[in-house]
Amino acid sequence: MAGRTTGTADGSKSGARCLLETARAAGASVCFANPGTTEMPLVAALDVVDGVRPILGLFEGVCTGAADGYGRMTGRPALTLLHLGPGFANGIANLHNARRARTPIVNLVGDQASWHLASDAPLTSDIVSLAKPVSCWVRTAKTAKDLAGDVADALRAATGPPGGVATYIVPADYQAEDGVEAAEPHGTARLRKVPGNRVEEVARRCRESGEKAVLLLGGPALSAAAQIAAGRIAQATGATVWVETFPARWERGQSLPGFARLPYFPEQGRAALEGAEVVVLAGALEPVAFFGYPGEPSHLAPRGTALLLAQPAEDAAFALEAVALALGAAAWDPSQGQTLALPARPSGPLDAATAGAALARCLPENAIVVEEAATSSLPFYTDSAGAPRHTTLSLTGGAIGQGMPVATGAAVACPDRKVISFQADGSAAYTLQALWTQVREDLDVVTLLCSNRAYRILQVELTRAGVADAGRNARSLTQLDSPEIDWTSLARGFGMPAQRIDTAEQLLEELPRAIDADGPRFLELSLA
Amino acid sequence: MAGRTTGTADGSKSGARCLLETARAAGASVCFANPGTTEMPLVAALDVVDGVRPILGLFEGVCTGAADGYGRMTGRPALTLLHLGPGFANGIANLHNARRARTPIVNLVGDQASWHLASDAPLTSDIVSLAKPVSCWVRTAKTAKDLAGDVADALRAATGPPGGVATYIVPADYQAEDGVEAAEPHGTARLRKVPGNRVEEVARRCRESGEKAVLLLGGPALSAAAQIAAGRIAQATGATVWVETFPARWERGQSLPGFARLPYFPEQGRAALEGAEVVVLAGALEPVAFFGYPGEPSHLAPRGTALLLAQPAEDAAFALEAVALALGAAAWDPSQGQTLALPARPSGPLDAATAGAALARCLPENAIVVEEAATSSLPFYTDSAGAPRHTTLSLTGGAIGQGMPVATGAAVACPDRKVISFQADGSAAYTLQALWTQVREDLDVVTLLCSNRAYRILQVELTRAGVADAGRNARSLTQLDSPEIDWTSLARGFGMPAQRIDTAEQLLEELPRAIDADGPRFLELSLA
Repeated sequence: MAGRTTGTADGSKSGARCLLETARAAGASVCFANPGTTEMPLVAALDVVDGVRPILGLFEGVCTGAADGYGRMTGRPALTLLHLGPGFANGIANLHNARRARTPIVNLVGDQASWHLASDAPLTSDIVSLAKPVSCWVRTAKTAKDLAGDVADALRAATGPPGGVATYIVPADYQAEDGVEAAEPHGTARLRKVPGNRVEEVARRCRESGEKAVLLLGGPALSAAAQIAAGRIAQATGATVWVETFPARWERGQSLPGFARLPYFPEQGRAALEGAEVVVLAGALEPVAFFGYPGEPSHLAPRGTALLLAQPAEDAAFALEAVALALGAAAWDPSQGQTLALPARPSGPLDAATAGAALARCLPENAIVVEEAATSSLPFYTDSAGAPRHTTLSLTGGAIGQGMPVATGAAVACPDRKVISFQADGSAAYTLQALWTQVREDLDVVTLLCSNRAYRILQVELTRAGVADAGRNARSLTQLDSPEIDWTSLARGFGMPAQRIDTAEQLLEELPRAIDADGPRFLELSLA
Repeated sequence: MAGRTTGTADGSKSGARCLLETARAAGASVCFANPGTTEMPLVAALDVVDGVRPILGLFEGVCTGAADGYGRMTGRPALTLLHLGPGFANGIANLHNARRARTPIVNLVGDQASWHLASDAPLTSDIVSLAKPVSCWVRTAKTAKDLAGDVADALRAATGPPGGVATYIVPADYQAEDGVEAAEPHGTARLRKVPGNRVEEVARRCRESGEKAVLLLGGPALSAAAQIAAGRIAQATGATVWVETFPARWERGQSLPGFARLPYFPEQGRAALEGAEVVVLAGALEPVAFFGYPGEPSHLAPRGTALLLAQPAEDAAFALEAVALALGAAAWDPSQGQTLALPARPSGPLDAATAGAALARCLPENAIVVEEAATSSLPFYTDSAGAPRHTTLSLTGGAIGQGMPVATGAAVACPDRKVISFQADGSAAYTLQALWTQVREDLDVVTLLCSNRAYRILQVELTRAGVADAGRNARSLTQLDSPEIDWTSLARGFGMPAQRIDTAEQLLEELPRAIDADGPRFLELSLA
């Protein structure tokens, strides 16, 4: 049986081994895993196939979120290894976020042995139905011989274009079956070219509308090069530039243009776009309200103004540069970008403003900031526009609990960069198990957890829904203060050095120490 | 808007209010909730409709698992309140377990406003596709006026027969819409009657086969009355009685028959049934292997021996009593059941044997033991057959992470009974947020967490798969010792009094104290 699984007994290879060899050849080198019995041949094959690093998560949402963070930073799919329908289900919320981020991910999901499926054993369920809502590609293996070719297809589907989450369901007996061969990986291209006529049309409309033109940047248009091209267009035409509200990955800081995100609440988003004659979509979708509020339309741009330059799976940077060229825009002078500009030293009790300012002041060059701080996040973005160059990753799909897992994966992807995991208590409680993986892998992640002991956004939303005086029951569902969560105790429980911070002064002292340290650190920011 | 939501302004009622009033009238009195913006009208209505107690979970898997525990103990559905597709997805694993337990549950899932769905805002997804694999009933509200009638249908579907998980998806605008009326609840019956000819056939076959007859009890056949009837049949015929391997709810202990569970591994299960001429299914499904192993068949009973007495949704207790009557079996004499028999005082390092013995010795009368201790669980079952009367709830669907949530719901359902939450580290790490809800609601739950710093069952399964010498990568995916998890720190982080126990002597001293205390307590059992 060992020989059948690993292929060492007679030189022939198991399905699991060929699957992994093919995935490795196609560029997959990390597997975020929480396997079970139906994945044992794949687990065993991880010791036979070189170059696929297994990383264990205590919960599947950690694995899928980490794969999202890894994919956002590398552009290459990580593998996940998940146990049947329930294991996959635990990863769905963060796959939902990955789908909205268009992150390449390949999920490997074991299933009952093909001959055992009909018995409907307790762990059996309809994995395809669970997978479809978050996957751009779903396939169930039909024979062992298909495993290598199928996983090559999965990697191509994930990598794109357009790319996204691919889910491959592999019955356990096919994994173990012998006499299988590896397959050639497919060539892949991340982004499609944008047709020239779109470039010309956008250039013409921007020229005509001048200051009444808006560029909305998203997806690949938030690279440094793409934003610089957008900055040149803005300079040449007077156009306004906005960044989509929840970017998957956004390059920011010193020497780059200091664009801001389109505001979250729909009335604010609409106000930002009011009067626009043309809203050019560069890697961004047409902006819509996050939720539908009575009296507010779904679409935020004035009717008929949306104009496509580049879809999210198209090369928005090249397209923006082409538009800039067509407009005869001047070359980018870095001095036109953000100069190094840090906020004033904050002091006193911690709140969103003082925490954000302290983080912006302490941000090291080339940091990756994984932000899911919800209502505590806004001041940080304002204050860090002129901070040293950094990358932010945000909550793309609204499924809370992505921040700490994404930070985990980003740190695996970029061992030479410091990851700042900027979190809020309500969302972080969803997937706190990520801290354990950060310790286990000794990842360079500094967590700043804003504890306001509430689902503050729900308190805001209750008010917006007209419930000015929420009763006891409604209030109770938005409050996290009974009991208070001791986050330093939780972090230490997972083996992470942790301390609680109560003032801005203390944060300014301790945050640089945490950043200078090697390995993970946890700071609980107790907000006033 | 407040008037529209709560119905207080002009006396007319919102959809959310009528939905809750109807659910209340149909017997729903608890709502395990983790809502978001699209559930705000339902949240507000919880303050207007009397008698539906909202209980907040920090993660949706806690809510659905708690609803499972509540439903197993009361036979009535709890409501859950979940946020869109991702919120529902976080609850799927424990709904999978509830589906296998056939627990009545009604999930209320908010969705985007009906007019906003087409905009495909970031949190939008295909909730129906996610819900189907775990639900016996799924419906999306089509108008506000349907909300009350629909939820009455959901409660009937959940309560049965056959009953199970019902999922109702309610766009936010319908919840808020005014001018809706409550509906009459449907009458419901939990169990169907068993046809008389089945009773006669089973009696005849048991009489003919004598000691070569087997009764397999599951579902409602694990009530005290049903087991006593099975005990009378066994006495009259010499039949052997087995309990299904993972019972949803099992009455045990002093004065009841001391039946054992069919063993987990298929070769052991097959051996237990070998030689049987008839395997009578009373509330249990035909026994199948949990996983398919090469060379082991799916079905455990000898071919052609399975004989249906009662399906899980049928009145197995009545059917077993009818069989006993047809056989002229003598009345049950409690002295024929288990006499109070406790294991010897364990001593020394903690392991599955000493921990199980200590728990069995300390078990208070009428305890509810929620067991997800995996490889550490077996000695407890053996040692507690003669303990004071108690109820066990086990992991029905194999989706780990159900134990602490189910304990939470069982404690809500039965405030006068002590709940013992007997857990293992690997599975408990999935849904540890349940501890916070236990503190928040001051529930009488004593957690015994067996920490062996491994996914021990996976180490066993690797060996069974023929991987005698697992390599570094495979081993790493089964080990939880780097870093070690400090469970007392985690429990304290959620506000629970906690201590670590290293020896059987210490456990025998501390467990009775924890049981005598009011409110939740946490004991980390550090297994050798």
